[in-house]
Amino acid sequence: MTSTNTPVEQHKVIRWHPPSYDIRVEDLPKPKIQHPDDVIVKVKLAALCGSDLHVYRGHSGIEKEHVCGHEFIGEVVELGSSYGPESAKGRPALYSSLKVGDKVVSPFTVNCGECHVCRLGYTGRCPEGFLFGSPALDGGQAQFVRVPKGGGTLFNLSNSSTWSSNLSKEEKEKALTGIADSSLLMLADILPTGVYAAIQALNHPKVLPVITGKPWPLCLNSTDVGMGNAVDFTPEDRVLTIAIIGLGPVGICAAVSILDALSSRKLPFRIVAIDLLESRREKMKAVYAAIGEDGKAGGELVVCSPDDAKIQVANWTGGIGCTAILEVVGHTSALTLAYDLVRAFGVIVSVGVHGAPQLPLTGRQCYNKNVSLDFGRCPARAMFPPAFDLLVKRQDVFGGVGEDASLIDRVVGFEGAAEIYAQFDKGTVGKVIFDPWK
Amino acid sequence: MTSTNTPVEQHKVIRWHPPSYDIRVEDLPKPKIQHPDDVIVKVKLAALCGSDLHVYRGHSGIEKEHVCGHEFIGEVVELGSSYGPESAKGRPALYSSLKVGDKVVSPFTVNCGECHVCRLGYTGRCPEGFLFGSPALDGGQAQFVRVPKGGGTLFNLSNSSTWSSNLSKEEKEKALTGIADSSLLMLADILPTGVYAAIQALNHPKVLPVITGKPWPLCLNSTDVGMGNAVDFTPEDRVLTIAIIGLGPVGICAAVSILDALSSRKLPFRIVAIDLLESRREKMKAVYAAIGEDGKAGGELVVCSPDDAKIQVANWTGGIGCTAILEVVGHTSALTLAYDLVRAFGVIVSVGVHGAPQLPLTGRQCYNKNVSLDFGRCPARAMFPPAFDLLVKRQDVFGGVGEDASLIDRVVGFEGAAEIYAQFDKGTVGKVIFDPWK
Repeated sequence: MTSTNTPVEQHKVIRWHPPSYDIRVEDLPKPKIQHPDDVIVKVKLAALCGSDLHVYRGHSGIEKEHVCGHEFIGEVVELGSSYGPESAKGRPALYSSLKVGDKVVSPFTVNCGECHVCRLGYTGRCPEGFLFGSPALDGGQAQFVRVPKGGGTLFNLSNSSTWSSNLSKEEKEKALTGIADSSLLMLADILPTGVYAAIQALNHPKVLPVITGKPWPLCLNSTDVGMGNAVDFTPEDRVLTIAIIGLGPVGICAAVSILDALSSRKLPFRIVAIDLLESRREKMKAVYAAIGEDGKAGGELVVCSPDDAKIQVANWTGGIGCTAILEVVGHTSALTLAYDLVRAFGVIVSVGVHGAPQLPLTGRQCYNKNVSLDFGRCPARAMFPPAFDLLVKRQDVFGGVGEDASLIDRVVGFEGAAEIYAQFDKGTVGKVIFDPWK
Repeated sequence: MTSTNTPVEQHKVIRWHPPSYDIRVEDLPKPKIQHPDDVIVKVKLAALCGSDLHVYRGHSGIEKEHVCGHEFIGEVVELGSSYGPESAKGRPALYSSLKVGDKVVSPFTVNCGECHVCRLGYTGRCPEGFLFGSPALDGGQAQFVRVPKGGGTLFNLSNSSTWSSNLSKEEKEKALTGIADSSLLMLADILPTGVYAAIQALNHPKVLPVITGKPWPLCLNSTDVGMGNAVDFTPEDRVLTIAIIGLGPVGICAAVSILDALSSRKLPFRIVAIDLLESRREKMKAVYAAIGEDGKAGGELVVCSPDDAKIQVANWTGGIGCTAILEVVGHTSALTLAYDLVRAFGVIVSVGVHGAPQLPLTGRQCYNKNVSLDFGRCPARAMFPPAFDLLVKRQDVFGGVGEDASLIDRVVGFEGAAEIYAQFDKGTVGKVIFDPWK
């Protein structure tokens, strides 16, 4: 009966305490396998994300302390009994291929990969899912983290055959060894969320006439009869006018993603990238300057304040407005600005995390502009493959730390975590990565 | 100088007077060509539409009397000087082909067919457009109506070569002579609006996984990399669960349209058709019974009250919710019900005419369910070709007047117009058509 006396193994964590602004570095019992599908990951790097501030500031309604962080990359150190070559058939492939020692990155939410919602690719809303860094599931700002449903959730950076890509096998493997962990960590949230915003805008049926050059409803693949009475498109009709509202890291990822999608498809465009904060606008300008010509050809991107953006869009479009808006803030004021900027039959894609206020639009406003709104959380696991391809292509902006054009300001240890959170809250540091072993 | 003494030619109209509930049959000066692009149409039939009630009840904010009605079919009696074989090149084809004597149906709004918005097919929001039956443009409940921008607006039912169709030329011509005017009149608003609701739902990217059998984002044509980690689709994943909220004439047209689209594409489905009023539910049941098997095969449609609909959808989907909702009411309560019924990553298509109240959803609700909302007025002119094809195919339900399954209750003269409006307002008559010459 010595077991009760065995000292429990501890690990270091960054933990939030209610009601607000209370971040502590603490020693807690190291997480253990609790379910056969669990994986224990030894965290190499974990990032601080703008959406952590909702909890930090006490705005989320959460009242229970928990380990912070939903962006992490690390190494598999322990696998539940579900894993191994004998894993049940019909389960996600990772249950049979994942090994101790594999390098993995996790999406910010857990998903089983086996339910109706996951099968459809809507992994961000798996009914068995949890958000890392919440009372329901301790987060990744820790030396170790337990990943439930790891075979559905994790992305295996040690085995390039586990996902599809437009890169060759050689390019993928070169990328897996050549790309820094601080860069790969962007896959956890900000890069797939940016890609998700861009991909929703460019695939919305109301945007398709501009992209396909065919009028509504002929722009739809499923429709082969349509108007046939209006005059032909002009070259100007084919120009996408896009606004990005919010130039935090996700907004910048959305900008890089949409620039890449448009330039690689040779579609003409005009983008206005908007933020109230000058520091964020300067970051966007530096990133835009750093992107290679292949990632932004065919148009221009202008960085503006909200008021200047209205003038810019009016000048570009003769008062018609934007084809699509990417709203990456999560505040009613951003939705109001989006509505003001969008054209009739335009699309507002919102990936910002919104709170309790009612939507700031009336039904009549929505009807009168035939506006479309797409809300919600990125299904990050499903977006990993295109996000990975973009990460590899755009190492010119996603590759660095601490440079003018880097999305990552610095890599720090846990020691000054409380101070880093306070600075991040005030906007005096950009995106920070924690190294729990530093 | 005898001209001032020439008696002005008069015609009979149904006119609304502010503030509310005041409908009068009056003699007014017959409309004249005011602009070279104008067309004068002698009205054969003009319908009463649910959205007329917004003005009738004084809810629209409109304070000026005007001739009512935005649904009419008739014959061209006078053309402005823009028309004729010598019409300027590059204008919509109807400017050169439309002739006095042609039978035409008009969409409920004017559109030029020449601006950026029209070229894209978004004819319902042409900046030069007006709604018929508004202070800006007298409506079609009259013996004559002036159609501005007629070459962009009108649909020529005497010349089957002026639009594309899945029907052969022979089938089209047979339809143009064989289909009753009371049936063709549905093209003005209710049928294209119903088709528009259905087509938006079935083409939304969030619905595509169910339709294509490929997960997000592989369901998108523009994306060739995607998840690849979840398990395969089951047959149940391919079943569309759809709710239609509001079973007025547009809601029923939406139901017939989506049934036709799904059955012709052999897609499995479950539809719940919802209304508070028993009379409307009975009409929907009669229409469903009348649709030929070719127009509804592959699934079932259940008619319900709102409360029963929640139970029905929960039973069908195990609590997941509807893939898409067609909201054909234009009231915040309908949007609230739509939100309650929709699944995560579901789509709410709203074609109802909404008023001043703020949207009844919070940003958090929208984020938490990854909901998409598509609002607004049907671009009816652009939807005429698919609506025409559906009208021809589904004469089993769109062909009659006054039968159990007919969308049209009766055809009446102008005499009792005030009484008909009052009955329509109370829901004691269904859709009524006026014959201004009866």
